[in-house]
Amino acid sequence: MKQNNFLYLLNDALQNQNIQLALDSVKTFKAVDLADILSQLPLDSAQLLLINLPQRAYVFSYLAPEVQVKIGNGLSRADLAEIIGEMSSDKRADVFKQLDLEQQNALWPALAQAEREDIRQLAQHAEGTAGAIMSSEYAMLTAELNVAEAIQMLRFEAPDTETIYVAYVVDQARKLLGVVSLKQLILASEDTLIRDLMTTDIIFVTTDTDNDQVAKIISRYDLLALPIIDEQGTMVGIVTYDDAMDVARDEATEDFLKSSAVNASSKLSIKTAPIFQLYKKRVFWLVVLVFGSLLSGIGIAHFEGIISKNIVLVFFLPLLVGSGGNAGAQSATLMVRALATGDVVAKDWVFLMLKETLVALTLGLTMAAAVSILGFYRGGEMVALVLALSMMGIVLLGCLIGTSLPFILNLLKLDPASASAPLVTSICDATGVLVYLYIASQLLSL
Amino acid sequence: MKQNNFLYLLNDALQNQNIQLALDSVKTFKAVDLADILSQLPLDSAQLLLINLPQRAYVFSYLAPEVQVKIGNGLSRADLAEIIGEMSSDKRADVFKQLDLEQQNALWPALAQAEREDIRQLAQHAEGTAGAIMSSEYAMLTAELNVAEAIQMLRFEAPDTETIYVAYVVDQARKLLGVVSLKQLILASEDTLIRDLMTTDIIFVTTDTDNDQVAKIISRYDLLALPIIDEQGTMVGIVTYDDAMDVARDEATEDFLKSSAVNASSKLSIKTAPIFQLYKKRVFWLVVLVFGSLLSGIGIAHFEGIISKNIVLVFFLPLLVGSGGNAGAQSATLMVRALATGDVVAKDWVFLMLKETLVALTLGLTMAAAVSILGFYRGGEMVALVLALSMMGIVLLGCLIGTSLPFILNLLKLDPASASAPLVTSICDATGVLVYLYIASQLLSL
Repeated sequence: MKQNNFLYLLNDALQNQNIQLALDSVKTFKAVDLADILSQLPLDSAQLLLINLPQRAYVFSYLAPEVQVKIGNGLSRADLAEIIGEMSSDKRADVFKQLDLEQQNALWPALAQAEREDIRQLAQHAEGTAGAIMSSEYAMLTAELNVAEAIQMLRFEAPDTETIYVAYVVDQARKLLGVVSLKQLILASEDTLIRDLMTTDIIFVTTDTDNDQVAKIISRYDLLALPIIDEQGTMVGIVTYDDAMDVARDEATEDFLKSSAVNASSKLSIKTAPIFQLYKKRVFWLVVLVFGSLLSGIGIAHFEGIISKNIVLVFFLPLLVGSGGNAGAQSATLMVRALATGDVVAKDWVFLMLKETLVALTLGLTMAAAVSILGFYRGGEMVALVLALSMMGIVLLGCLIGTSLPFILNLLKLDPASASAPLVTSICDATGVLVYLYIASQLLSL
Repeated sequence: MKQNNFLYLLNDALQNQNIQLALDSVKTFKAVDLADILSQLPLDSAQLLLINLPQRAYVFSYLAPEVQVKIGNGLSRADLAEIIGEMSSDKRADVFKQLDLEQQNALWPALAQAEREDIRQLAQHAEGTAGAIMSSEYAMLTAELNVAEAIQMLRFEAPDTETIYVAYVVDQARKLLGVVSLKQLILASEDTLIRDLMTTDIIFVTTDTDNDQVAKIISRYDLLALPIIDEQGTMVGIVTYDDAMDVARDEATEDFLKSSAVNASSKLSIKTAPIFQLYKKRVFWLVVLVFGSLLSGIGIAHFEGIISKNIVLVFFLPLLVGSGGNAGAQSATLMVRALATGDVVAKDWVFLMLKETLVALTLGLTMAAAVSILGFYRGGEMVALVLALSMMGIVLLGCLIGTSLPFILNLLKLDPASASAPLVTSICDATGVLVYLYIASQLLSL
């Protein structure tokens, strides 16, 4: 409520061209909060506020892509070129990618030569790689400087770098020689040479390294920034810890959505996405899974005889089949996450299958005991036996399918996260139907 | 293979007391990699290597809790007290918590007074709160210093602080007045007063703030560290960005596991956890879900008459019921993640239910079309009609259940992530059975 009242007054001030009042009222806001406010204002007010903000390029970079395009479209070409020019290189390339070809062409001449070159460089790299998220604005030093000179250099470079807390020592050909932190510089005596101070065991990756690998390395080594080199070994950019946090969150979101067979990127917001887009992200797997369940139906049709003679079997059908699916989904999820966090690698497969078998047997025994009591009560001892044997078999198979599928996808270079719970459930269901009704047909009278 | 050969030689050097050789061979390793190596060495070799490492406290803090206890148990009390004394305050408190009471008592007198006080302070805070993960080692400045004095002060404090890139300006009572970054200090002229330089719009949280909230704030505002204050407004610690990354990863892992009804903490490794522990984390929900599926069974039993007259209904049972479960699981997962990332809040519920209804209708129509063709082919037009109507109803109900459950759990102050796919599936299954067989009993002849 408070938020809405504030937006109402702010909008009023902007509509009345009372720009100073508007700016004063948002003076204490952080850039990301200002971006939220811009997204909620009417378009003309948002544009007016944005172009008057002192840190406008920074605020603009926090807007969601679709809002950037919407607000950007209404700005004069000169204003937009200025804002894009002021942005950091990685954010600038991101915005440029959103624009359609006509807009890009209109904007291109208004950008400075260096900015155009930067956009060209960064646009070369495939989505999802270090090259696509890196920034080309990092602090560089040469090995011959002493500490006092280096600090002076960092002061000079500060406005154009993402961080001055880590500086990269390069040679004439921009080959990466070492890393030095501002902390090291502050603690060293002024005449120490950078050559003697720098760390030469450098952790770095190349432009084609996967995003999620970049995020993992930054997190593992608690880095502020990770240097990126090209195939020639030339330093071309850095990825900072805050971008790594965003990557890690987006990867986790995507894996999480895949776990329920939603094929969405992390950018999908259920609040703002159009209905057709939500439909599109969900319908494919739902229809695929229909055909998966058909297998269960075919299994059931095959055993129609034994079912119609022992209609009590139908009573236990959802329970038995469901248990296999649930156990399988658990196994798959544990495995997918372990592969994603690097806790498990492909060569652990045999060991994990053996271990999973033991876990599945203990789970199966517990479940078999529970279900056979129910079966005895409802259908007598033969039904109890059928249920106990089926449950053991179904849970065991479910666990093994759930454990294997992510590994197999991994081997085929597919994303293990595609082994979603619904897919595993659907495969385990069909298997479960066959196991259950086959055992029943062997032990019960037709 | 290379890794194993290296471990073999390293172990050999240690067994022969050739400590210098061992140390030389790991000289270029980062602390986190050394921790990995220690975990893979035989216990006596690991202990020997650890106590001789120059950065041993730092390496020790990277070990998994169970390895810390194992290795720590074999060290002399003096060695262990020294290592724990050298650790950062948050890591020290974590280790201490692992030890049993006897070990704690044995170690207590060997620790310095300040270290004991620190452990006592940090141990007060509940698990999962900012207080439990914060570090009490942060850089402090007073407002009256000028920039040159402040930098000198940071140099002096550096060995005992987690970071010198952010310093907190406090008054005599340790009330937080402002924040200043090392970048600001480096760029300002030497005689500027900290009072005039510091940022006073401080983002901070209290000791009882949830971990995941802390991680979200650090990520949202791209902070290097977040200051933590107590109820009196006194500054008591900081949480750094690298700890926030760990928290965010652990939260994502836990939500991911919950999505398949595995009740595990992020610390559970399927590779190293004992079988009984894996069993325990999985069996509870599997058994609960058995009783969930019983509801489906009861529904089926109630309609046994119509089933035995129209055995073709059984053929479509897994397909229809499964589709509701799958659609519901998708909805629940989208909602759980949106609540977790803050994309959606409680008051969006009505809007999202309306939106979900539209999405569900489009999904339901598609699915109904698909299944009614199959139904017509297999059972004639009445069966096709039953299937189409049932599918529409089941998908719609599934989506609404999946969307509501996380919200309801959230309202009840329970973790929305407990609305796991298997739980939603199981509820949707039972609903689906009733809808399908009720519609069938109305439209088909008994």
